[in-house]
Amino acid sequence: MTKPFKKILITGAAGRLGSELRRGLAPLADTLRLADRVACEDLQPHEEGVVFDLADEAATRAAIAGCDAIVHMGGAPHERPWQEVLDSNIRGSYHVYEGAREHGVRRVVYASSVHAIGYHPLADHIRGDAMGRPDSLYGVSKCFVESLASLYWDKFGIESACVRIFSSFPEPADRRMLWSWLSFDDCCRLVTACLTAPHLGFTITAGMSDNRVKPVDMSHAGHLGYVPQDSAEPFRAKVEAKTPIQDPDDPATQRIGGWFVNLGHPDDDETA
Amino acid sequence: MTKPFKKILITGAAGRLGSELRRGLAPLADTLRLADRVACEDLQPHEEGVVFDLADEAATRAAIAGCDAIVHMGGAPHERPWQEVLDSNIRGSYHVYEGAREHGVRRVVYASSVHAIGYHPLADHIRGDAMGRPDSLYGVSKCFVESLASLYWDKFGIESACVRIFSSFPEPADRRMLWSWLSFDDCCRLVTACLTAPHLGFTITAGMSDNRVKPVDMSHAGHLGYVPQDSAEPFRAKVEAKTPIQDPDDPATQRIGGWFVNLGHPDDDETA
Amino acid sequence: MTKPFKKILITGAAGRLGSELRRGLAPLADTLRLADRVACEDLQPHEEGVVFDLADEAATRAAIAGCDAIVHMGGAPHERPWQEVLDSNIRGSYHVYEGAREHGVRRVVYASSVHAIGYHPLADHIRGDAMGRPDSLYGVSKCFVESLASLYWDKFGIESACVRIFSSFPEPADRRMLWSWLSFDDCCRLVTACLTAPHLGFTITAGMSDNRVKPVDMSHAGHLGYVPQDSAEPFRAKVEAKTPIQDPDDPATQRIGGWFVNLGHPDDDETA
Amino acid sequence: MTKPFKKILITGAAGRLGSELRRGLAPLADTLRLADRVACEDLQPHEEGVVFDLADEAATRAAIAGCDAIVHMGGAPHERPWQEVLDSNIRGSYHVYEGAREHGVRRVVYASSVHAIGYHPLADHIRGDAMGRPDSLYGVSKCFVESLASLYWDKFGIESACVRIFSSFPEPADRRMLWSWLSFDDCCRLVTACLTAPHLGFTITAGMSDNRVKPVDMSHAGHLGYVPQDSAEPFRAKVEAKTPIQDPDDPATQRIGGWFVNLGHPDDDETA
Amino acid sequence: MTKPFKKILITGAAGRLGSELRRGLAPLADTLRLADRVACEDLQPHEEGVVFDLADEAATRAAIAGCDAIVHMGGAPHERPWQEVLDSNIRGSYHVYEGAREHGVRRVVYASSVHAIGYHPLADHIRGDAMGRPDSLYGVSKCFVESLASLYWDKFGIESACVRIFSSFPEPADRRMLWSWLSFDDCCRLVTACLTAPHLGFTITAGMSDNRVKPVDMSHAGHLGYVPQDSAEPFRAKVEAKTPIQDPDDPATQRIGGWFVNLGHPDDDETA
Amino acid sequence: MTKPFKKILITGAAGRLGSELRRGLAPLADTLRLADRVACEDLQPHEEGVVFDLADEAATRAAIAGCDAIVHMGGAPHERPWQEVLDSNIRGSYHVYEGAREHGVRRVVYASSVHAIGYHPLADHIRGDAMGRPDSLYGVSKCFVESLASLYWDKFGIESACVRIFSSFPEPADRRMLWSWLSFDDCCRLVTACLTAPHLGFTITAGMSDNRVKPVDMSHAGHLGYVPQDSAEPFRAKVEAKTPIQDPDDPATQRIGGWFVNLGHPDDDETA
Repeated sequence: MTKPFKKILITGAAGRLGSELRRGLAPLADTLRLADRVACEDLQPHEEGVVFDLADEAATRAAIAGCDAIVHMGGAPHERPWQEVLDSNIRGSYHVYEGAREHGVRRVVYASSVHAIGYHPLADHIRGDAMGRPDSLYGVSKCFVESLASLYWDKFGIESACVRIFSSFPEPADRRMLWSWLSFDDCCRLVTACLTAPHLGFTITAGMSDNRVKPVDMSHAGHLGYVPQDSAEPFRAKVEAKTPIQDPDDPATQRIGGWFVNLGHPDDDETA
Repeated sequence: MTKPFKKILITGAAGRLGSELRRGLAPLADTLRLADRVACEDLQPHEEGVVFDLADEAATRAAIAGCDAIVHMGGAPHERPWQEVLDSNIRGSYHVYEGAREHGVRRVVYASSVHAIGYHPLADHIRGDAMGRPDSLYGVSKCFVESLASLYWDKFGIESACVRIFSSFPEPADRRMLWSWLSFDDCCRLVTACLTAPHLGFTITAGMSDNRVKPVDMSHAGHLGYVPQDSAEPFRAKVEAKTPIQDPDDPATQRIGGWFVNLGHPDDDETA
Repeated sequence: MTKPFKKILITGAAGRLGSELRRGLAPLADTLRLADRVACEDLQPHEEGVVFDLADEAATRAAIAGCDAIVHMGGAPHERPWQEVLDSNIRGSYHVYEGAREHGVRRVVYASSVHAIGYHPLADHIRGDAMGRPDSLYGVSKCFVESLASLYWDKFGIESACVRIFSSFPEPADRRMLWSWLSFDDCCRLVTACLTAPHLGFTITAGMSDNRVKPVDMSHAGHLGYVPQDSAEPFRAKVEAKTPIQDPDDPATQRIGGWFVNLGHPDDDETA
Repeated sequence: MTKPFKKILITGAAGRLGSELRRGLAPLADTLRLADRVACEDLQPHEEGVVFDLADEAATRAAIAGCDAIVHMGGAPHERPWQEVLDSNIRGSYHVYEGAREHGVRRVVYASSVHAIGYHPLADHIRGDAMGRPDSLYGVSKCFVESLASLYWDKFGIESACVRIFSSFPEPADRRMLWSWLSFDDCCRLVTACLTAPHLGFTITAGMSDNRVKPVDMSHAGHLGYVPQDSAEPFRAKVEAKTPIQDPDDPATQRIGGWFVNLGHPDDDETA
Repeated sequence: MTKPFKKILITGAAGRLGSELRRGLAPLADTLRLADRVACEDLQPHEEGVVFDLADEAATRAAIAGCDAIVHMGGAPHERPWQEVLDSNIRGSYHVYEGAREHGVRRVVYASSVHAIGYHPLADHIRGDAMGRPDSLYGVSKCFVESLASLYWDKFGIESACVRIFSSFPEPADRRMLWSWLSFDDCCRLVTACLTAPHLGFTITAGMSDNRVKPVDMSHAGHLGYVPQDSAEPFRAKVEAKTPIQDPDDPATQRIGGWFVNLGHPDDDETA
Repeated sequence: MTKPFKKILITGAAGRLGSELRRGLAPLADTLRLADRVACEDLQPHEEGVVFDLADEAATRAAIAGCDAIVHMGGAPHERPWQEVLDSNIRGSYHVYEGAREHGVRRVVYASSVHAIGYHPLADHIRGDAMGRPDSLYGVSKCFVESLASLYWDKFGIESACVRIFSSFPEPADRRMLWSWLSFDDCCRLVTACLTAPHLGFTITAGMSDNRVKPVDMSHAGHLGYVPQDSAEPFRAKVEAKTPIQDPDDPATQRIGGWFVNLGHPDDDETA
């Protein structure tokens, strides 16, 4: 059967999630173009690698030529000094959307983050597409790209799913991940759903596995067709055995952004 | 065990869904009275047939005598010229509700349609009982009956479930049905749930199977007790193999009413 | 200065509100075309009269030729037997919208009614554009036209304001009108606002004067630019002197539709 | 592995649910302190019993010393004369919260009730944490404690889950329980979830099993991590065989509080 | 003209607001019955005084005989030790509602308080009828009576307006009152509106003058017909001259309950 | 009387609005520090001028030293090429917030814009603090600063009012400004309200005069205490005389951003 896409660009392809998506998205396209600042290893016949920095507009645009979808996972993956957040996440993502516009790409899946909404209290059980409430400069940059994606849909007809990824790791590493975990397989399922959903327009969703404790209400996102298959529950005993009970007064316990809310300003930390 | 109803009238009983409901609703009543403009075939001992046009008020009312529930599936099943929509769906449904009032029927299940809300964008993921936004005269007639049902509950105490049926066919026939499909078995389950729910008052719900992609939010309808058992997923490969990818710019891709939104006015089409 | 419209059709122009609108809308158009089943009297130079029944599709369509806006006040103005509601309000309004479509009219102001939402409790203080909850066949017909107007906007680009008029009379005639009254001058202001608002799309609003007691929340309708200038308050003493206190247990006291909720079915009444 | 709590106080431990919770909560604490007006029988090594009336402030406070969580199930379990509701549920619960404050207890699970929201119509399918609408003095007392719990979170940092328990019985005993039933095992799962959820703040939820018919929308409560495993469905045939169909006009059929809405005032009943 | 009421009972009639209401409500009833724990002074011909404690059920009930409306302002007017809150506000108000039920009173206006919702942040600009979030035991008692009023409407048909009075004083006394002030005249207007509104059912509203800064959204309360005439603005310069700017970090600045949120537990204060 | 502030920094002080604010905010502070890329003219004794580019972080931070409030009007005032939007609005505003954090400024009023929400249809009558839906890169930059302001409140306790200014000009210049106009005096009133409101936390509001037609619902912003005094109405005749009626099909007519929605990408325009 014909694959739905000719060529999908994956940014951040050498990163933790990018590597998983190489595997998970292979069935969707004839070719995966793998972009990162470092070369992706072990390229397969259906893969091609490109190396550049997202801050380099010309290189970023050029890498999009010939692609019909973009999975934009690249950029700083956590709180970083402002200049890096600016270059990698704000300027870099602008370059990606400009490339999509230049080359007629119609659909983008963007790795937004829980940190775009990290200050919302867990007990509020907000909708997964709630108004931004970032917990870091990193989170602010995620909100920026969500706004940009909104514009590129309304004005240029480029569809986007902005996926507020919670915690995508090999397995839950702390007590918070017992509710924030997104397994790699579920991450692939979710990105696949976003790429193949009948219509995205501009959609914000949240990315978690089918954990028992659910931090946000996902009743708004059924049109994506994401059905998680994994859960943090099998890891509970192991995690609880090795980590202390969370302090109920700690903002990191009370807010969905977790310990990001306790971070100071990254530039202060730098100078420390 | 005593069946919950003595006699259920099914209108449109010779139609696609009516035929399925003959089978599916048999356990609920001593007798099914099967009404259509043409005679229903192969009547079983627990069935009785009546033939009339819903536009005939006297015949419609008479057919309701002795029934304690109505499953109103009759009328034009898709976009038709105005006069036909008026006679079959608007006038016909009024006759049904008047018959219910005359004969003391307490509960009606009405086959409303996705086309009552067809202009809502898929990406809005509206509630299944959202405000009407019809995509056709057919859809307007469905909104009319929903309003009528509201009145007959508030003023005359007749309970109604208005089921916005998406696409009930033997199997998903196009890519849209991968999210809009309602299997015949699930259709029977849904109508059964509406007939036996503890309390309906005036309830609007949507009718789909447990498809992976869900076009509307169904968190408002738990009191009906409908639990779909089927899914379009097993048909996905077959459907995708024989149908092209949808044009992302086509309103039929973006709106939940699908190709109905692209229909012109039916009376224009007639004269063509 | 150029008037905003060349010719406005007013249906129901011989009726209570129609007569007022002849006066109130004169500044908006070079010509007012006055339509009713009976001839309008005292035609002025800027007025032209047409006589027909809205149930007559050809005549209704013909009357719309040459108009660039329609103020559709015609049809049965209160609960009537079904056949009359059907002919005057449902079929008649369909004819009006078809005429608008045929002749390229871009904006319609429709006299919907509080009776489209009459069963909502006063204490719920619903939004003025809340979901329909009709209190009569008359109210159902108003809901029908609202649905129709929604379709004609989405599909044919004809803008509509559906104005749920509460009680438009020379002065408040009973205690309910102390909150439901719409003065004739305010009625003209409201229709003028709807005709000249920068953008209507499909808008539902409610029509009342600036009475002290307000039955619905109007915070959704600011884009129309309607600013009422009158109030029922000056009539309070007079009204209270001649009418008894309302029975708190009477549904007519509790629901915004007032005594309409206590009406039986009009066809029953007819045979009485 | 270390248990999450040293000592949990269960009030009402000799009651129907209390007995079940002795079993269900054993894995969560080194010791369960079992409080009731009568002695709990068959104390196990990990259990200790205390006997007092919740109306006795000193005794109630004393019983809380040394505990690090409270599961407050005690008090009148259904409609009772005002004085008893006042002493057992209002004053008694105040004593519990004061004891929690005095002794530094950080988390309370409170057995609120469907009767705090009993007058909401079933067809409204409200959220499980909707505004109170009590159906009895008993229900008012439940609302009171919910308010109190809100204060103790905001002002004193004591987390509470107020669980609006629907019908927790060995098995569904009437047709209403086909949707309101909470199995004993699910009750234990729910209280366990509330005790171990990462963050409660002040959370209201509803307590039912995974019944087919769901009276309220639970999409707001995912952060608790309660996943019911039982259902009333297997009991349906049995229940329907022995109980008549509900009268559709009976408020007890229409409101989620069931027959409580038909109770008169308890003090009137007393004097009867 | 006939006055709308024969006899209105005002509880707390010797208090700050009660005294004002003697004047303000005089036009509404033939007789005002003035109840308080101390005798009201200067009784006028249309007034009659009764002296009792609300904690005395028999006396409270007896005082209601012959009245056709109750304005219940009595009870502890601010944070007090629990026993006093219990006796005056909880038990006392129950006695009032029981008296209303016994004697067929159909409408009660209850002086609830901003302290029923005092922990809501000012910047959230909640609706005036938002879910309770009390800031004190006093506030909890107000929530209790709101719940009780809800029950007495649903079950016994007694209408209530629960007015969350913000700060009713002769003039604004501190910076918070620049937004929370309710002038005595506006207080009389508001209670009058509640007594004469066409239908209350169970309505919660908030009570403030037309201050420039408005802490809550009042768009839900138009059906009461309250139109404030006063404002704190003329007092701004005077208040600002004598009081310091509020600390932006102080919870009393951020929450609508003001300094009540900083109060400790009243029973702790007592023992101090 | 002591002024509420010692020194307020106004960025963009040489611009259209900045000049007006020099006059309007004079009563609020001992000193106004006027910042712009060009020198402000005619400095008064209570004014001091500073000249720098917001893209210069060190200069921006330095200019904030000694100030206790910031009115941040600076940056590109309409759609500009990306690099300019990035430097002036994104980087520049970051510098402002960092300066506020460094120097302990507690309150910032930020000139956001209607273009942060410009793609919302006028007929939706959204809330003034609705989710962003930018119509330009300029609008995206406004959304960015709103996100940044949210972070600086939650994490660093700096209060912000983000004012989505519609059209602030000497007088309404086109038909859109008949509903989008913010008079200079009202602009001063609004900024004054934001500076002196009792509590902002993080508040988004919209800025318009009291025009007859209101594009958004402002019922969420009462806590700011902004009461507009001007209206576009007196200019209506003049504006309508010199400008054509808007095309109802033009997106610029239908969306609240007006002609911004029809702009292409600014970098495309540049190269043209």
